Amino acid sequence: MRAVLAALATLGLLAQTPATSNVRGAAYPQVHPDRRVTFQVKIPTAQKVQVMPGGGANGLGKGPFEMTRTAEGVWSATIGPVQPGFHYYWFLVDGVPMNDPASETYFGWGRQSSGIDVPDATLDFYEPKDVPHGNVRMHWYRSRITGLMRRAFVYTPPGYDTSGMTRFPVLYLQHGSGESERGWTAQGRVNFILDNLLAARQIKPMLVVMETGYAGAGNEKFSEVVVNDLIPEIDRAYRTRPERHHRAIAGLSMGGGQAMQIGLGRLDRFAYIGSFSGAGARNFSLASSFGGVFADAASANKQLKLLWIGCGTEDFLYPANEAMHKALDAGGVRHVWFPSPGLHDWQVWRLHLREFATKLF
Amino acid sequence: MRAVLAALATLGLLAQTPATSNVRGAAYPQVHPDRRVTFQVKIPTAQKVQVMPGGGANGLGKGPFEMTRTAEGVWSATIGPVQPGFHYYWFLVDGVPMNDPASETYFGWGRQSSGIDVPDATLDFYEPKDVPHGNVRMHWYRSRITGLMRRAFVYTPPGYDTSGMTRFPVLYLQHGSGESERGWTAQGRVNFILDNLLAARQIKPMLVVMETGYAGAGNEKFSEVVVNDLIPEIDRAYRTRPERHHRAIAGLSMGGGQAMQIGLGRLDRFAYIGSFSGAGARNFSLASSFGGVFADAASANKQLKLLWIGCGTEDFLYPANEAMHKALDAGGVRHVWFPSPGLHDWQVWRLHLREFATKLF
Repeated sequence: MRAVLAALATLGLLAQTPATSNVRGAAYPQVHPDRRVTFQVKIPTAQKVQVMPGGGANGLGKGPFEMTRTAEGVWSATIGPVQPGFHYYWFLVDGVPMNDPASETYFGWGRQSSGIDVPDATLDFYEPKDVPHGNVRMHWYRSRITGLMRRAFVYTPPGYDTSGMTRFPVLYLQHGSGESERGWTAQGRVNFILDNLLAARQIKPMLVVMETGYAGAGNEKFSEVVVNDLIPEIDRAYRTRPERHHRAIAGLSMGGGQAMQIGLGRLDRFAYIGSFSGAGARNFSLASSFGGVFADAASANKQLKLLWIGCGTEDFLYPANEAMHKALDAGGVRHVWFPSPGLHDWQVWRLHLREFATKLF
Repeated sequence: MRAVLAALATLGLLAQTPATSNVRGAAYPQVHPDRRVTFQVKIPTAQKVQVMPGGGANGLGKGPFEMTRTAEGVWSATIGPVQPGFHYYWFLVDGVPMNDPASETYFGWGRQSSGIDVPDATLDFYEPKDVPHGNVRMHWYRSRITGLMRRAFVYTPPGYDTSGMTRFPVLYLQHGSGESERGWTAQGRVNFILDNLLAARQIKPMLVVMETGYAGAGNEKFSEVVVNDLIPEIDRAYRTRPERHHRAIAGLSMGGGQAMQIGLGRLDRFAYIGSFSGAGARNFSLASSFGGVFADAASANKQLKLLWIGCGTEDFLYPANEAMHKALDAGGVRHVWFPSPGLHDWQVWRLHLREFATKLF
């Protein structure tokens, strides 16, 4: 059904198409060429149904949006034009949040949530193209720190299997609060972004390791998992270049804070650090944040091959990130500062990944 | 939270534990030692909330089950003892089906659905153990048949990456109606089943390829995708043994029918066929089903290294499968017939996979 409608749209015979984030065969939600979105769901017994974007700063706009009911109990709403990119949402059915049965689910907000991906007519760097494709592997291992099985997602570039003894640098890439190891693939499209960059020869081939940024109470234990469990496991199981100058860590939001905390705390392990709309910028102090590593700018500059800080200018964390950037500048800490239009959302982080990846290794 | 509760339970300090199918940190649903299950959800505005098992023959029993409300708007129900294994369910909130926000989602019934995994105290062959673990890879490729990107899940056994030039046989393994390429991993635990069998030296190392058994209208096109797109792609990208006597196809329910249709239709490609509670048994005719391949029993017996047919004795498809088995017997077609107690559900199919895999290659 989706294929047929997409083909009709390509021929100009249909103005709106089912979202690529829908489940197989679902006709709605549909995205219009002007980026309006039509949601539709059949719930004959409901008194009121609304579209509720996930979070206060969502590219769908500030909801909830009222849906109107047909005689057959089908509720419908067309909203927007909305921002391009990936947006979480739910239906509020008489006030109760539920997933859209027509949407795939995306782990965010601590639960499996509905999401819609709205294409950007001017950007296709994260779309699947006719280039060689890498895999994303589900990699299970037992953590000695927690005693439990954990699962990492590992992107291997096209040609990894046939590249003989070649060894690869590794980017450790973290999701945000309430998300999981699946986020960078399902919401972020890490694999298509890197496939496309590789085909265009804009990055070096690399592995990308994505873990769940939780390991019991607090960030401290997750840091231990990364350094003492995950890195040794990845270096054992894959043909990596296990030196610090071939290892990067980055993340978005909470994961950006973790990347700075873990990376700056273990510069013996990491030489490249990326913070995407990072929460670590809050209450930043040049003298004392991250163990005071920036107090000695010369030492930090010598150890860090790249410190990359990006943030959307409409992000609620923008003032904190801009202040951190200015403090680092004032302190003489070398870094890349990448402000760009956008909210606290995945479209910005896809762009951050692209920009960051081109500067690695 | 789950780890703490599990630890307390191990120490005998807590009788019931959060299900392993819950999202991170969710305390409910909980499974009791006697296999009763307690569901809980906070919906203060609802007038009625029920637990609705997915389908009429579900191991949770015949619902819907009424939930009772506390003063704070928390709804709760304890049901069972239920059957061990994986069971789909939803909450009916004033009659509207919604997912349990505390459950992971599992693609079934054409949508992302809630599911609960109830342990079997007597069976642990599908549980993660301290043995070497294989990966499951998400493998993207473009289908020439459909013109669209597709995604297969590919299990590679432990040691695949370090086994040099060694080549592996391949099992193509299909899900049921309304499910997807993710089913055998998330619901079926294919990776842990094969990891455990390998560690016990009960199977040969093999790849398992799991695709989405839909490709537009009808089964015919999916058959073309398997034979003309998927097999060449897998033989290109992995170190396979590409001869028919190193290639198997199996599936559950609809996928069991597809395995027989595709496998028996292309005996030049497949020498091992498995039907797990297969829908292909309906209206079976020895003379004419599957292109009449069984009309010449001697020829079928010569070409088929294994024809394996299993079904739960309480399955609605049991009479059809038993009749097919008897007709094959009467016709002199060599096959394994594996009836065992159970419904049309994943616990039976996990067992089928174990039994079938031990007879392969």
